[in-house]
Amino acid sequence: MNQKELGALIDGLAGKKIDMLGKDFLLTWEKSRDEIEATFIVADALRALRDSNVSTRLWDSGIAVSNFRDNSTRTRFSYASACDLLGLYVQDLDEGKSQIAHGETVRETANMISFLTEAVGIRDDMYLGEGDTYQREVAKSLDEGVKAGVLPSRPAVINLQSDIDHPTQSMADFLHLSHRFGGLEGLKGKKIAMTWAYSPSYGKPLSVPQGIIGLATRLGMDVVLAHPEGYDLIPEVVELSKKQAAASGGKFSHVNSMDEAFKGADIVYPKSWAPFSVMQQRVPLLHANDSAGLKDLEKKCLENNARFKDWECTEEKMKLTKNGKALYMHCLPADITDVSCKAGEVAASVFDRYRDETYMEASYKPYIIAAMILLCKSKDPRATLKGLLEAGKKRSLI
Amino acid sequence: MNQKELGALIDGLAGKKIDMLGKDFLLTWEKSRDEIEATFIVADALRALRDSNVSTRLWDSGIAVSNFRDNSTRTRFSYASACDLLGLYVQDLDEGKSQIAHGETVRETANMISFLTEAVGIRDDMYLGEGDTYQREVAKSLDEGVKAGVLPSRPAVINLQSDIDHPTQSMADFLHLSHRFGGLEGLKGKKIAMTWAYSPSYGKPLSVPQGIIGLATRLGMDVVLAHPEGYDLIPEVVELSKKQAAASGGKFSHVNSMDEAFKGADIVYPKSWAPFSVMQQRVPLLHANDSAGLKDLEKKCLENNARFKDWECTEEKMKLTKNGKALYMHCLPADITDVSCKAGEVAASVFDRYRDETYMEASYKPYIIAAMILLCKSKDPRATLKGLLEAGKKRSLI
Amino acid sequence: MNQKELGALIDGLAGKKIDMLGKDFLLTWEKSRDEIEATFIVADALRALRDSNVSTRLWDSGIAVSNFRDNSTRTRFSYASACDLLGLYVQDLDEGKSQIAHGETVRETANMISFLTEAVGIRDDMYLGEGDTYQREVAKSLDEGVKAGVLPSRPAVINLQSDIDHPTQSMADFLHLSHRFGGLEGLKGKKIAMTWAYSPSYGKPLSVPQGIIGLATRLGMDVVLAHPEGYDLIPEVVELSKKQAAASGGKFSHVNSMDEAFKGADIVYPKSWAPFSVMQQRVPLLHANDSAGLKDLEKKCLENNARFKDWECTEEKMKLTKNGKALYMHCLPADITDVSCKAGEVAASVFDRYRDETYMEASYKPYIIAAMILLCKSKDPRATLKGLLEAGKKRSLI
Repeated sequence: MNQKELGALIDGLAGKKIDMLGKDFLLTWEKSRDEIEATFIVADALRALRDSNVSTRLWDSGIAVSNFRDNSTRTRFSYASACDLLGLYVQDLDEGKSQIAHGETVRETANMISFLTEAVGIRDDMYLGEGDTYQREVAKSLDEGVKAGVLPSRPAVINLQSDIDHPTQSMADFLHLSHRFGGLEGLKGKKIAMTWAYSPSYGKPLSVPQGIIGLATRLGMDVVLAHPEGYDLIPEVVELSKKQAAASGGKFSHVNSMDEAFKGADIVYPKSWAPFSVMQQRVPLLHANDSAGLKDLEKKCLENNARFKDWECTEEKMKLTKNGKALYMHCLPADITDVSCKAGEVAASVFDRYRDETYMEASYKPYIIAAMILLCKSKDPRATLKGLLEAGKKRSLI
Repeated sequence: MNQKELGALIDGLAGKKIDMLGKDFLLTWEKSRDEIEATFIVADALRALRDSNVSTRLWDSGIAVSNFRDNSTRTRFSYASACDLLGLYVQDLDEGKSQIAHGETVRETANMISFLTEAVGIRDDMYLGEGDTYQREVAKSLDEGVKAGVLPSRPAVINLQSDIDHPTQSMADFLHLSHRFGGLEGLKGKKIAMTWAYSPSYGKPLSVPQGIIGLATRLGMDVVLAHPEGYDLIPEVVELSKKQAAASGGKFSHVNSMDEAFKGADIVYPKSWAPFSVMQQRVPLLHANDSAGLKDLEKKCLENNARFKDWECTEEKMKLTKNGKALYMHCLPADITDVSCKAGEVAASVFDRYRDETYMEASYKPYIIAAMILLCKSKDPRATLKGLLEAGKKRSLI
Repeated sequence: MNQKELGALIDGLAGKKIDMLGKDFLLTWEKSRDEIEATFIVADALRALRDSNVSTRLWDSGIAVSNFRDNSTRTRFSYASACDLLGLYVQDLDEGKSQIAHGETVRETANMISFLTEAVGIRDDMYLGEGDTYQREVAKSLDEGVKAGVLPSRPAVINLQSDIDHPTQSMADFLHLSHRFGGLEGLKGKKIAMTWAYSPSYGKPLSVPQGIIGLATRLGMDVVLAHPEGYDLIPEVVELSKKQAAASGGKFSHVNSMDEAFKGADIVYPKSWAPFSVMQQRVPLLHANDSAGLKDLEKKCLENNARFKDWECTEEKMKLTKNGKALYMHCLPADITDVSCKAGEVAASVFDRYRDETYMEASYKPYIIAAMILLCKSKDPRATLKGLLEAGKKRSLI
């Protein structure tokens, strides 16, 4: 992209109504359509600036807190890369995985780690009913800290996966789709199948499928959610998605057949998750550190899962899609049959064909996270990006 | 603070006799009154520069070693923030918690981690008689490395809490007090009550109360140390405090009554600690990894603690203080009655009223640490700060 | 070093045939003599630039992945220091120590961590037959990622110790030797004794002795490899060393006597390692997490080791060397008799005399690593270094 094209890309922000300053990025459906689009533009601009060897450091010092209450490699690296790209230094906050901090502790810790902090990224997806709540408690504590004059500025809380949404994933996914389908306009009317798929594991969070239907239904798409009976998502998110589809001129259907979902689909997203009811049962067991109870629950779930081994994204199923050529998506790592397990979410030959696409899909995440931080911190994102472009400081001297 | 005010603040360093270059910051009482004041000025200046969006990066590369031999969130973040503020990259040295390295190992490790290092921050507060010793052993090894031409410059060792002192805490506390009482001069004659308080835990280090009395007695204050019989601090530190009080025109008294300490106090600092004799008994048990012995000791201590549940900073006790309005201080986290425990160091209503004050108190720590590093490394701290001010490089482009 | 001398040092790169761009640094014997020399020059230049307070930041953002599959303090700090010196931010990849990732997982992870990454440093020395293989699998995956357009540039894979070679150690060792013996030319014909030495531990990797003989035989030296019968290295590396010695006009001999190796030696490198056959037996035990089997193997090895306690670098043995004054080398930490153990690799008085030399030897490692990264990433290393020199940006403002 040359300087002029880059300028035009950034100018796409003009006229967008953006009210993100001093706020957080927790759920995509709390953001306006303009704000979603602005996030995509800023992400594309940051990537193009970097590709043009223009420095995107907005800070020459500053802390970005990383708080992972669940294991992570991909999102951890995406967050670290995003923060480094902006000039922030990541500092891990490790509170231990089994307990959730509450009240006084959250308030105090949130302030203690934020005296020189610009962003706080939190992954908390294990505890249904608690992850999003915790993120909001941190955000509220930071508000109080700013109000009391304890904090010089309000760090942005970035949801790196909660029990409800996984916005850095879904936004990266849709930026990828936007590039593949000629922009967000090109996605209108396209059929996307968000379907459950078999996996020999259990307890996978609901936030990815919820994030996908919660965002796809904003874009006028034909959204199909498919899973075996009993593998429900959080009911409120499904309800919301229905309403959003209606409002955006799209469609939302909810079926119990993978075939039906795949039929004529432009995009398929086959992925395992644990039933809502199981996630509910897990919470008290996790808190109690009841490993016998957890094992027992796992055994029952795996037995139930095994009834649905035919929920696999095979070549046969892919043939049902539009011209047999739907775009396959996955947040990775996928459970690939005969590769990572005996029977899994996707056939090896299908995954092979789309591997590079899934890698490309993932490649947007660092830029999406950086865009979220920038938009929550900059008074004038367009001027900020223009400033970087005009300064033209080299990122690499090599 | 405008540019002129900032310049005047920095000029406060003129005329101070500072001999900190190439040295360490281990105990406040090893520093002259001028050096203590210089540390406060530099900390205030760094904070004001950052608040004015002026970059305080002194290095564009360089390592700051972080060596925590005990858990820490607050001090860890303060140290990381301070180092990042100066442009240093923190690298953790994890030697394991149960063993103390000695002799050859300390000498070698100290040099191996310091080839490109500017600062070494060490927390080692668990082992009475060993933490300060270890820090000095590291410092001596670094001296030898410089002398042998192995190290290009002498990294500054910063005491992030030892068995004897906790200077980053006490200095932050007194910078806060200085701002609340109209400067260090305003603290003269003020009564500060450093008192033990009940907590349902045991084994808390002595370094905070020792750090407070070791610094307060330098400033001409009326210092009262209060604890139940048997909850002694290291005798040498108490002796030193007495002498310092006499020399500074202040007072030092040592009582066994919280009420007496609170009476007419301008400042109260109620905080739990383990008796000196218990800390002594713990050392061989910790080294032997004798968990049965440690449990046994803990049980006896908690039983003894329980005899002093009335050592709580209640509303009633606060009424004893000057106009009932003494400034409450704590290094956090406090054991708050009915919040973090059933019976603790402080009543919830008292803590609530002073919460923001304690957060503000904590907010000075990153700047104090940065000031210590700067003063140990800069030939001319005033010129260094003036240089930053005049360069006026923006910390944030947003 | 003044500006002119520094310029002359950098100009030493002119005329060197360097084909390292876009490649990795895995084994020294895969690099040409010119490339080895270029690495030394770049390392010296980076050190001289830093000593002259000239910034060597080549990147103002960028990730350096650190993947240690074995414990490390020295190499970890060296790598972190090197990356920070160049402006890269180190992000740890922790895959767990007991399993080796294969196939799909390696390919995927390698790409997922590399979207904004410039270098990937890997230590994997525990598993004979697997460490080097793993590093090549990562490298191949990165090639594919670049080819597919997923990665914007090819991160350099740096071998931080494999089962075969330890190039950052051997290159640092020989840069030290080059400075002690008047350049690489001065090493021609010098006798170096790479000998096994007794240690009360077992399972030490083979990569250091292999790295030393694999590099020394390139330089026309008189290389003697000595160890008790049965303590073999990987046979292919010994074969290669023989051939290299012949090609470089040097000598290679392989003996079972420490005395013979020391006789007339200019340089001695006494260091323990585990026999090749033991390392082979360990691999399946490690993979199976068979702690009983590992204990059993350890017991047998230690018993066998104990037969060779006279393989110690004593004052008597040192007297056998050239004028009794051979340069003693060690990668550290050494097992020092009566200091770190009852009987070890080296007598305390010998180690004492050479301690500073071994520290100096170690001090080259960060610069060697930085040089490797620079050479794998820069199209024109001479121009890159000249650019830094001419820009003359200060590393430290103090």
